[in-house]
Amino acid sequence: MNARPGLDQLGLSSGKKARLHRILHEHGLRNGTALFLPYDQGLEHGPRDFFANPVASDPKYILGLAIEGGFNGIAIQIGLAEKFYWDYAGEVPLVLKLNGKTDIPSTIDPLSPTNATVEDAVRLGADAVGYTLYLGTPAQERDFAQYRQVRADARRLGMPLIVWSYPRGSAVDAKGGKDSFYEVDYAARAASELGADMVKVNFPHPEKQSGAAEPYLADFSSQQAIDAVVRSANRTLLLVSGGERAGDEAMLDKARQSMEAGATGLIFGRNVWQREHSESLRFVAQLRDILTKYPSR
Amino acid sequence: MNARPGLDQLGLSSGKKARLHRILHEHGLRNGTALFLPYDQGLEHGPRDFFANPVASDPKYILGLAIEGGFNGIAIQIGLAEKFYWDYAGEVPLVLKLNGKTDIPSTIDPLSPTNATVEDAVRLGADAVGYTLYLGTPAQERDFAQYRQVRADARRLGMPLIVWSYPRGSAVDAKGGKDSFYEVDYAARAASELGADMVKVNFPHPEKQSGAAEPYLADFSSQQAIDAVVRSANRTLLLVSGGERAGDEAMLDKARQSMEAGATGLIFGRNVWQREHSESLRFVAQLRDILTKYPSR
Amino acid sequence: MNARPGLDQLGLSSGKKARLHRILHEHGLRNGTALFLPYDQGLEHGPRDFFANPVASDPKYILGLAIEGGFNGIAIQIGLAEKFYWDYAGEVPLVLKLNGKTDIPSTIDPLSPTNATVEDAVRLGADAVGYTLYLGTPAQERDFAQYRQVRADARRLGMPLIVWSYPRGSAVDAKGGKDSFYEVDYAARAASELGADMVKVNFPHPEKQSGAAEPYLADFSSQQAIDAVVRSANRTLLLVSGGERAGDEAMLDKARQSMEAGATGLIFGRNVWQREHSESLRFVAQLRDILTKYPSR
Amino acid sequence: MNARPGLDQLGLSSGKKARLHRILHEHGLRNGTALFLPYDQGLEHGPRDFFANPVASDPKYILGLAIEGGFNGIAIQIGLAEKFYWDYAGEVPLVLKLNGKTDIPSTIDPLSPTNATVEDAVRLGADAVGYTLYLGTPAQERDFAQYRQVRADARRLGMPLIVWSYPRGSAVDAKGGKDSFYEVDYAARAASELGADMVKVNFPHPEKQSGAAEPYLADFSSQQAIDAVVRSANRTLLLVSGGERAGDEAMLDKARQSMEAGATGLIFGRNVWQREHSESLRFVAQLRDILTKYPSR
Amino acid sequence: MNARPGLDQLGLSSGKKARLHRILHEHGLRNGTALFLPYDQGLEHGPRDFFANPVASDPKYILGLAIEGGFNGIAIQIGLAEKFYWDYAGEVPLVLKLNGKTDIPSTIDPLSPTNATVEDAVRLGADAVGYTLYLGTPAQERDFAQYRQVRADARRLGMPLIVWSYPRGSAVDAKGGKDSFYEVDYAARAASELGADMVKVNFPHPEKQSGAAEPYLADFSSQQAIDAVVRSANRTLLLVSGGERAGDEAMLDKARQSMEAGATGLIFGRNVWQREHSESLRFVAQLRDILTKYPSR
Repeated sequence: MNARPGLDQLGLSSGKKARLHRILHEHGLRNGTALFLPYDQGLEHGPRDFFANPVASDPKYILGLAIEGGFNGIAIQIGLAEKFYWDYAGEVPLVLKLNGKTDIPSTIDPLSPTNATVEDAVRLGADAVGYTLYLGTPAQERDFAQYRQVRADARRLGMPLIVWSYPRGSAVDAKGGKDSFYEVDYAARAASELGADMVKVNFPHPEKQSGAAEPYLADFSSQQAIDAVVRSANRTLLLVSGGERAGDEAMLDKARQSMEAGATGLIFGRNVWQREHSESLRFVAQLRDILTKYPSR
Repeated sequence: MNARPGLDQLGLSSGKKARLHRILHEHGLRNGTALFLPYDQGLEHGPRDFFANPVASDPKYILGLAIEGGFNGIAIQIGLAEKFYWDYAGEVPLVLKLNGKTDIPSTIDPLSPTNATVEDAVRLGADAVGYTLYLGTPAQERDFAQYRQVRADARRLGMPLIVWSYPRGSAVDAKGGKDSFYEVDYAARAASELGADMVKVNFPHPEKQSGAAEPYLADFSSQQAIDAVVRSANRTLLLVSGGERAGDEAMLDKARQSMEAGATGLIFGRNVWQREHSESLRFVAQLRDILTKYPSR
Repeated sequence: MNARPGLDQLGLSSGKKARLHRILHEHGLRNGTALFLPYDQGLEHGPRDFFANPVASDPKYILGLAIEGGFNGIAIQIGLAEKFYWDYAGEVPLVLKLNGKTDIPSTIDPLSPTNATVEDAVRLGADAVGYTLYLGTPAQERDFAQYRQVRADARRLGMPLIVWSYPRGSAVDAKGGKDSFYEVDYAARAASELGADMVKVNFPHPEKQSGAAEPYLADFSSQQAIDAVVRSANRTLLLVSGGERAGDEAMLDKARQSMEAGATGLIFGRNVWQREHSESLRFVAQLRDILTKYPSR
Repeated sequence: MNARPGLDQLGLSSGKKARLHRILHEHGLRNGTALFLPYDQGLEHGPRDFFANPVASDPKYILGLAIEGGFNGIAIQIGLAEKFYWDYAGEVPLVLKLNGKTDIPSTIDPLSPTNATVEDAVRLGADAVGYTLYLGTPAQERDFAQYRQVRADARRLGMPLIVWSYPRGSAVDAKGGKDSFYEVDYAARAASELGADMVKVNFPHPEKQSGAAEPYLADFSSQQAIDAVVRSANRTLLLVSGGERAGDEAMLDKARQSMEAGATGLIFGRNVWQREHSESLRFVAQLRDILTKYPSR
Repeated sequence: MNARPGLDQLGLSSGKKARLHRILHEHGLRNGTALFLPYDQGLEHGPRDFFANPVASDPKYILGLAIEGGFNGIAIQIGLAEKFYWDYAGEVPLVLKLNGKTDIPSTIDPLSPTNATVEDAVRLGADAVGYTLYLGTPAQERDFAQYRQVRADARRLGMPLIVWSYPRGSAVDAKGGKDSFYEVDYAARAASELGADMVKVNFPHPEKQSGAAEPYLADFSSQQAIDAVVRSANRTLLLVSGGERAGDEAMLDKARQSMEAGATGLIFGRNVWQREHSESLRFVAQLRDILTKYPSR
């Protein structure tokens, strides 16, 4: 288990520290852990994701859920932020997602174009911005260039930057795959090298070894893998993504191992809102029970 | 008594609402009232203000006092914000005071030059900016021009703007004086007309009538005066200034009448920190007892 | 005696900390103290200052003296920096003085116009910039505006900002005078409120009380006065100016009391180079003997 | 053997000379030689490089090693510089690496996108910037355009520019290969022609002749090859890269021949930190023994 | 006598050195001395200056004279440069005078506004620019601000900057007067502190002591005075102005003493062209005889 560092040990500027303090210590469990609600699937996947629980199609419902469930923040695109955040402004921290794409064209070698700026986030009263970086695609060069501007603006304005660090593309598929230990570990490190304040990664699968770099071919437990991933992120706080809806026990296990490894928290969307309201809250309560055991300064 | 409006009734943008929500509902009494600690006297008056309680010379002490006393915000200049706010970033809202001056040269017709920008405030993680507007001086024209930039930037970045609205100058002295009902009422209204989100005024003195406009020459109680001042500010939230150290009972009366009139809160500096620590906290507790009776949404 | 803070306790950015580390820990006594050599008198007073020791007219001689004497930095104007610093680039830290004026026109209410930028300082390899702020003059407003740009650029580029904080003008003359305890104390505090990283002040004279603010009318020793001035500067490191050539014992006393009070160091020009070479070095050795007793991190 | 020129013989501006003086004469052996620690492998190769010595995954450990080992500088990416350099700001010179990429997508014809600017380097207190130029790839045109901005900014701000000059791509593979004498010699010269202040090259292999230009087909010793490479760099100081971990004797031979040829120093990363701490220091001591024999002004 | 430094000892950039090399070593006597022809009197004084020799009113005549007389450069305003320099472009170096004024309004406290830019000078093929700085006037602040831009542009474009450094104003009149040793010495030094590459001063009069600073009240010969002035200018090359038409022997004496003191040359206008052509050339020949005795690198 890695010790989770306090906010004063991360080399943060005053503005980033103030905003992360709000997220981690003035919302949610107020103990330095985080539970984020991502809600950009309407753009990324389309409304198909809402058929399992049609009310989830309504952004106002989701914002209410974020508040009722005691989330540390909600991650949405500019359009929903402009039209829905005012109603609850300040009641739950806003993470403005700055880029996004549809999944209609081929997503083999994706790039996610920005549709909003860090200044938009400031103007709306957001406490962080989110950026999806697709590592390993042939478009990596353009992605890095686009990301560089976001990073520089976030620094200039004291806005915490959360990187959705996702290995993608045919090269990734050939080297372990997007949720292999090798690729997830690389993704965490790359975000840290490129200046993310938080990084969102998939939970690593050490058994996916086909094509992975040599050191990853040994026999690692999933706990060992997530431990290593948190270490690779060093002073970049780590969030583990829920991904597609899966069995509750599997999700809770993933959560426990992540927190045990020193992650700062979880970012679970579909596993939360792709079910009926009271079921959502019951599942969230279980996640909070886990987070409550891992306080930090 | 005026009913104090909720944040959703003020015509605020999303960012301003989010930040005012934090100030008014996530700090202090969390009931929509505000108790601010102003600490720019080191520049405005020099260290002489600290001789009554030498430890008050230390900005770190004052920040600690703001947190221990449960203040809704602390108002400081850029130099102290840059060097001291990081230690407590996010723990108490920062109001970055954007202009200031020394009192060494003649202050008959003052103008307070800006020394920081709204973007500095964003960068440092502030939740509001403060601007001193000297109404009625011959320099009013340059003052308005300087203010206009601040207001425009505050709007662009969703940053609440608190105006220290102070009648000053020889013309003011000849028309009631800087804390006459006439001048204070005018100051509250002018701030509202010019786009302040909050306005800080002195408590009005209806008995100071020499030179005041005709309608102010009648017999008004101080409660009637402050009622009128709050009405003049309309959707601009009103803060009453403590001013120089005075007797506790007088200060508490001023506070009661202000809150009864519909003020949002108080901004008391020297009356708080120009005394020994436990005395400061005892006085603050009395102020909080008053504020607790005036909740709003 | 105040404890002098380490560089990690000052709220410095990475660039400012790196450059101050170089000045305070990689030059001079390398113990956190500073001895600066100011050499802008050729502009401020004209060549008359060099008649006492004609070789001092040659900037190359002065740069050599700064190195031989083990100074922590030399403060010069852009013209000399452009033409002379290259020869010794990096061997002694450069403090580029950004403003200056001649003393030919009336200096009753002075303003010192900038003649170089922080970017010039970066380009030349300087480790700090200097700015003369004349507090209390009628030109204070324009001075603050000019200063604001310098401060913002220094922050943006991570360049330490040393403020020559000088009370001046007829109002100052009427309120204690430019080296009274009241005015010097105010000057130290104002520099701190306005964001200086270091402040250069004259040694305070508590006996000059005519017109000073009330709290300064008591009986203070000069040690008590300089103690208070250092406290007023809080996280802004304090340098005591030598001023005009005076008796060595008086200067050494001033130095001792300043360091005892928690000053970071001394900035002595004419008292150093207005004498023959070996005499200069002998005097510098005495100053170093004092500084060596006051190490800090 | 080529005589290594002094800093005053290189046509440097004042700022570049000051910063190189700091690197070469105020750190390391302080004799004009350099030993740099490169630590951008976390981005370039991923965390797999840290498995041989897991503590090397921690940037704080590496910074400490750079200081304990007496290195002249450490080369890192913006993310690590922002979050870790503050702790040791100024204690070891920072070389901010301005571009970088992952090795997940095909690296046959690489281009390394910039993720930071020369102004970032100034702001962080860096003493040099690093840029990887891939000579010979089909992307050379875009690479040169990107490099041109870096060079111009470095000149404007007086920041030394170190070029990682790496022949790469299918054309290079067909003409001797990336570490052939022909390609390395070309790389050294190209960096000099394009305005690098220092150039980092691989040690040249004169026996790799397949496809090389005609004059390189003769029988050269490795000493003759590195002599020629240093001459090709002329006033651009030359650093020899360590590359992958190899046998100590081979590395020390490479170091000796390089210094004998007139190189300024070495930039060894994996060969240093891919081993246990005391082993690292022992190897560094051997490198320092070599460098100590090659002083220059 | 001061030794005159070579161009490689002045801390010049490449562009400034190249252009000064052209002026000092490829025109005139080609021995490092300079004889400039100033011709801006048409603006400064009006056509009255041409009545003594009406053909001097024709800029083409004056350009021809500059070439025939073997001058090192001609200093003219933008209007004449635009319309007349083309005819002789490159045959005699152009010094574009960037500011100027008429003498119709009161000249007690003058400021000379710029009417052209350094970029104009580049465009026209000039080898230097000229700027008149009036030291000591109440307008000094605006003058410095205007000058700062010229200096920065000259640096950026590698253009030598010649400062007409003229003490002026009521304060100057009260402190020795504009051609007193005290004021001229100050003017030379101020130009050097402010970054001039060459400075044009009046010949100093040590006997004008009324109101001068104390060190100037002793008994100095004019040779001692000009020696001191050249030393004050240090690496700023010094030109002595001819001023109003005077007796030839007095002018030649002034020239001899100046060159003996280490001046770089002379800038004589009215004394040259306020007489008939062959007389002009005869006088010029006498000046050249003097300059030929003072070669430098």
